[in-house]
Amino acid sequence: MFLEVMTVARALEALAPARRSRVERVAAAPGVVPAAAVRSGELLPADARATVDGYAVRAADTYAAGETLPAFLELVGTVVMGAAPEGEVGPGAAMAIPTGGLLPHGADAVVMVEHTTEPMPGHVEITRRLAPGDGVLAAGEEASPGDLLVPTGRPLRAADLGLLAAAGITEVEAHARPRVGIVSTGDEVVPGTTASLAPGQVRDACAPALAGLVREAGGEPVARGIVPDDAGALERVLGEAIAHDDLVVVSAGSSAGARDLTAAVVERLGEIVCHGLALRPGKPTLLADCGGVPLIGLPGNPRSALVVFRLVGLPLLRTVAGVTAPPPVPTTRAKLARDVPSAAGRLDVVQVGLADGVATPRFGSSALLAPMAGADGYLCVPEPDTGLPAGTAVDVVLY
Amino acid sequence: MFLEVMTVARALEALAPARRSRVERVAAAPGVVPAAAVRSGELLPADARATVDGYAVRAADTYAAGETLPAFLELVGTVVMGAAPEGEVGPGAAMAIPTGGLLPHGADAVVMVEHTTEPMPGHVEITRRLAPGDGVLAAGEEASPGDLLVPTGRPLRAADLGLLAAAGITEVEAHARPRVGIVSTGDEVVPGTTASLAPGQVRDACAPALAGLVREAGGEPVARGIVPDDAGALERVLGEAIAHDDLVVVSAGSSAGARDLTAAVVERLGEIVCHGLALRPGKPTLLADCGGVPLIGLPGNPRSALVVFRLVGLPLLRTVAGVTAPPPVPTTRAKLARDVPSAAGRLDVVQVGLADGVATPRFGSSALLAPMAGADGYLCVPEPDTGLPAGTAVDVVLY
Repeated sequence: MFLEVMTVARALEALAPARRSRVERVAAAPGVVPAAAVRSGELLPADARATVDGYAVRAADTYAAGETLPAFLELVGTVVMGAAPEGEVGPGAAMAIPTGGLLPHGADAVVMVEHTTEPMPGHVEITRRLAPGDGVLAAGEEASPGDLLVPTGRPLRAADLGLLAAAGITEVEAHARPRVGIVSTGDEVVPGTTASLAPGQVRDACAPALAGLVREAGGEPVARGIVPDDAGALERVLGEAIAHDDLVVVSAGSSAGARDLTAAVVERLGEIVCHGLALRPGKPTLLADCGGVPLIGLPGNPRSALVVFRLVGLPLLRTVAGVTAPPPVPTTRAKLARDVPSAAGRLDVVQVGLADGVATPRFGSSALLAPMAGADGYLCVPEPDTGLPAGTAVDVVLY
Repeated sequence: MFLEVMTVARALEALAPARRSRVERVAAAPGVVPAAAVRSGELLPADARATVDGYAVRAADTYAAGETLPAFLELVGTVVMGAAPEGEVGPGAAMAIPTGGLLPHGADAVVMVEHTTEPMPGHVEITRRLAPGDGVLAAGEEASPGDLLVPTGRPLRAADLGLLAAAGITEVEAHARPRVGIVSTGDEVVPGTTASLAPGQVRDACAPALAGLVREAGGEPVARGIVPDDAGALERVLGEAIAHDDLVVVSAGSSAGARDLTAAVVERLGEIVCHGLALRPGKPTLLADCGGVPLIGLPGNPRSALVVFRLVGLPLLRTVAGVTAPPPVPTTRAKLARDVPSAAGRLDVVQVGLADGVATPRFGSSALLAPMAGADGYLCVPEPDTGLPAGTAVDVVLY
């Protein structure tokens, strides 16, 4: 089979899956993806409030006030937190008010206590000139009825939860955490719980690592087990996954024979849109559209599989989760400790350790996981580049 | 009370809590913090394996091989995945082997199939010279018994889960998710589920937002409810929290009176180590050590509270969770859209929106949450700086 490689960006364009996870009503929580914009049903705040500790006044009463000639006002009461003020502030009057207190009728500004004195009981002197609205949070300044509180397609963050709660909203219509079916293949592969290995057996490292990435990204990993190198068995398991999951990931085996078998089975279940990526590690990657459900055939080496799943699987996971405003990739800036070679036309992903702003590449066979487990992140050498010299400032994507 | 402000870094040094969450045996998962280093009990891999599809040979048999004079070897069998090879590779012999297959006895290298031909049945020609170990993952190359797999104090990541599973380890001794007691205060504060507000009431925006941050950071939020501005009630609730939680957070109220009440109560329960931070927003922050349990008195504005909790609460949460190797802060590089003013001697935290590599500051009263909910991250103007001009390249910490 001719292996036409695609860039990662091109492959993601080619595989634009129709699938979205189902919409349900859930408690607002970090990472929840709203399926519709959430708007305020109320005026927030409903009434004007003080933003400083001080005195509610009519700004006009302070128009000539200053350090040398304070405005002299009569104290007509005290606003109590959480209650409607008693009485009102007429001309020449002031009412003591704490931060957050409701602005009494008649008042249009609050002077900070630092700019006042109480020269005698029942009176207050004000040494600053105020404009209407000073020291006041106006009604509706946070939101008016119909105002957008959180957009559709952007995962909720902590501040969103606060804003929604302020508006009395604790549940939202949202996309369910997408189900990601994870299938391991190989006659030699046994579960991680296997205490002792027969000759030639290896424990399944890929499935738990992928499940971890899926969980971190807000998905729900569905363990679909280990399938021997048998076309019928693989077709059954992948068919199940396609029927029930929002995204399917299969470790396509490390040998050419195992990959060919996976490709042949996937061909029967959907349309293969990519037979290989211009990526190292990760070239032998298969991408297919199975009736709208995206399927990723990952390379057999766990380390290559994790690189591919981060670059290709996480964007697909977000797409099926209804995310239309993906978060920026978290990176940190570092100086490269030594030269990194790369071939032009291929995206190179290099694991690095970070210390004191220096990124040290961790090379080693892509059959090994230890160099990745010990790394703090990775850097990408873009397709056009032929390498990066030591000392280059690089953006390290953080694990 | 004289408000001596501390820098955030100094405050975290001063409050170095003794508390650590309890240690328990848990399933390995992303974010789990190992309480002890995890070491391999096995040789990984237990036996040498092929890293390419090809033929297992003795390297010495290829010492003169090249394109013009291939080595001519007898094919003595085929290695099957997941099983011990039958027979061995003697001088002048070769055995077909898939990637991941066990290296047969006698062989010390694997030649890629691309560098071979099968000129007649039962024989193979090799056109490359091999060194011992070529195309082979040696026994123990991933790990030897006693080798460190994951260190203590660093939250587990996806690749760690793979490496542990490869070694047959699916559970670890780890620190429990720290319990973070969240207390809201204020006569005016009602739960977010309150359908309609009486005059002067506000819904609790702080507790759900803090719970979200705690969850994102791997902690377990414990909702300890809303306490009125009453010293006795607050002391009871805070006492409960200190007795059961690993970290306690109390919104200390927005007015000076409410803050003084909180400070007086906290003084009876522990030792206050910081009465204010050189931070904007977030100056009126209280930090205390209550018998080893750290307590944070947050400013009353939800937005200030969230800024402080990110800068002070998250590091404390990691400390009590047993994290000794905190992850780098995820940032992205952007150009500042306009000037940001700042006062020297104070850390300024500015919310920004991000688009096309440009960071646009979102100003607005710190009594408002909307500017933060709409932001993609924040930037810090360090204590010595008096502002940043438009066009400055800044590191934006991502939400």
